[in-house]
Amino acid sequence: MPVIALVSMPSPGRRTAKSPINEFSLIRTLQQRYTFKSSRIIRGIGDDAAVIVSGHNRRQLLTTDLLAEGIHFNLRTATFADVGFRAAAANLSDIAAMGGIPEYVLVSLAMPRSASAAQVGQLYRGIMAACRPHDVRLIGGDTSASAMGWFINITLVGSAPSRHVLLRSGARPGDDLYVTGTLGDSRAGLQLLGQRMPARSRLLPARHRRVLLERHLRPTPRIREGRWLSTRRWATSAIDISDGLSGDLRHLCQESDVGADLNLSALPISTACRAYAISAHENPAMLALAGGEDYELLFTVPCRQRTRFQRAMAMDRIRATRIGAMKAAGEGLHVTLSNGRRHPLPFISYEHFSSKT
Amino acid sequence: MPVIALVSMPSPGRRTAKSPINEFSLIRTLQQRYTFKSSRIIRGIGDDAAVIVSGHNRRQLLTTDLLAEGIHFNLRTATFADVGFRAAAANLSDIAAMGGIPEYVLVSLAMPRSASAAQVGQLYRGIMAACRPHDVRLIGGDTSASAMGWFINITLVGSAPSRHVLLRSGARPGDDLYVTGTLGDSRAGLQLLGQRMPARSRLLPARHRRVLLERHLRPTPRIREGRWLSTRRWATSAIDISDGLSGDLRHLCQESDVGADLNLSALPISTACRAYAISAHENPAMLALAGGEDYELLFTVPCRQRTRFQRAMAMDRIRATRIGAMKAAGEGLHVTLSNGRRHPLPFISYEHFSSKT
Repeated sequence: MPVIALVSMPSPGRRTAKSPINEFSLIRTLQQRYTFKSSRIIRGIGDDAAVIVSGHNRRQLLTTDLLAEGIHFNLRTATFADVGFRAAAANLSDIAAMGGIPEYVLVSLAMPRSASAAQVGQLYRGIMAACRPHDVRLIGGDTSASAMGWFINITLVGSAPSRHVLLRSGARPGDDLYVTGTLGDSRAGLQLLGQRMPARSRLLPARHRRVLLERHLRPTPRIREGRWLSTRRWATSAIDISDGLSGDLRHLCQESDVGADLNLSALPISTACRAYAISAHENPAMLALAGGEDYELLFTVPCRQRTRFQRAMAMDRIRATRIGAMKAAGEGLHVTLSNGRRHPLPFISYEHFSSKT
Repeated sequence: MPVIALVSMPSPGRRTAKSPINEFSLIRTLQQRYTFKSSRIIRGIGDDAAVIVSGHNRRQLLTTDLLAEGIHFNLRTATFADVGFRAAAANLSDIAAMGGIPEYVLVSLAMPRSASAAQVGQLYRGIMAACRPHDVRLIGGDTSASAMGWFINITLVGSAPSRHVLLRSGARPGDDLYVTGTLGDSRAGLQLLGQRMPARSRLLPARHRRVLLERHLRPTPRIREGRWLSTRRWATSAIDISDGLSGDLRHLCQESDVGADLNLSALPISTACRAYAISAHENPAMLALAGGEDYELLFTVPCRQRTRFQRAMAMDRIRATRIGAMKAAGEGLHVTLSNGRRHPLPFISYEHFSSKT
């Protein structure tokens, strides 16, 4: 695979919302300006969720996400229930990445004048469909008008024993790098939704199409996997794939102060995603690296535990793939192509300006 | 004062965002559908903040608010710092109404393409200016693009000893009804901001103008008063004035299953607000009853404690005014005019569709 395919920016699709503000420098500025030392705040700005002390040996996890119509979702291609489900799943995934148990949800809505009670009902039904399998309770929120479009803010509250919180900052050089599930499906599903059934997509069998749409519209937050990794103390660090592997691996490396080598041919890509890539003349590795919103967990495990870890995974039916290894910070981020050549890993993304602070 | 002035709907001003959805029936539907019995949820949907069990004899309070440009704020008349301050103050006020200590804040922003880092910085400065006096720490959030306009969601986390949480549901027939501070100032300030200095407003002395603008743009959340009322166990119930006295008293009565008699001539109205009302040919009682966003506390105290309570208030410099009494539910809500006549209290509001669920 030519390197050029990795550094070229893909067409941004429908979710183009580039802002003049550099989101990462914004987060860093806020961190520097408003982070005060406090024995009760274990982790503030800069992880998947905030971590605060909550009673003896217990941590509370808090995360919040604001989703905007026309940026994060499109009501022409997704139902209100889909939008609600994805909004909740994105937050559940943040709690999963901390190894936590999600517990409570607060939902704020701003809705246009044209909104109907049925639409609001559908949205809540979707939110609760994502929350119910994890026994997450709705405890409050806020509803208001919007001058234009729908806005949904979800705040999710979870908890974990203090020894079992997974941070982004625990990866060490020499750790193996893993990811759960498969990558790129959600992006492929999004692109399918945007198509008016062009000739080439008819080449994609309906069963693959269904899988990819489901993966985009109804993603599975990896709560069970996160809990397993944290309570068994396998993982040294974790993050969820919301921006895309290329970006989220970068966050993990920054917070842990390490480098990484990614093995491109090891990336887990589903049959459906491969079939889509062929039909759409896309590079599947690009979908996997830059796709985003997979809500899979990217995590690290000490390499000396590799055999035991992989045996435990098989026994407990945890599906994850080893895709690389952590290096010293000075070595930077690299990707090894299938021809064995090693290149600096470029930052590639579908320009979706949205970022946890 | 003629009754007609009370039932007529005032001109809605700039914040007109009527929705076809009845907000109260929406809240009730959500309450019925998604409220599950849980020993850990003391109060879910339907109070100023959610109340959950947090360790031994401790309660956690959670509240969230989504504010939309063009609905809740106008960037032509308020600075970004003002907008941030008010957004934080509204949430701090919810914690105040529960008698709690505010602790942590999460901020989500959706911003238009035209947004600058300086504007975001100002917004955060305003938020933190409201939070800092109460030692509230920023622990996280989310930033993203918006297709149009600014949206700010603030989630505030607080706590209180379990015996000291003030609910809306504790008022009993016979309790005295009090309100802190003065009412109507915020609405007068909002109306002043909307004026292009018409002839009549020149009649208003600059010092009054300043007071009213300050009261609208930089409201004071009554944290100290809420804590005092809860820890001294004076209040049987409390709510903050966000929708307006007429609406919020109704919420308190519904949640406590009581009625109320309001004494119109007792309403605390500032000199500045009275002067504004004269200059603008408005009824000051209308501003006080329907104004909203005063962020004062409306609370109830058993009448047998009246003397002790008022002595304690004077000693501890708590400013609140007795404005009525609670009645049995069957008696409904009434208002006694200055001529001694008693009328049913109409629901009046400046049509600001925004409501805590």
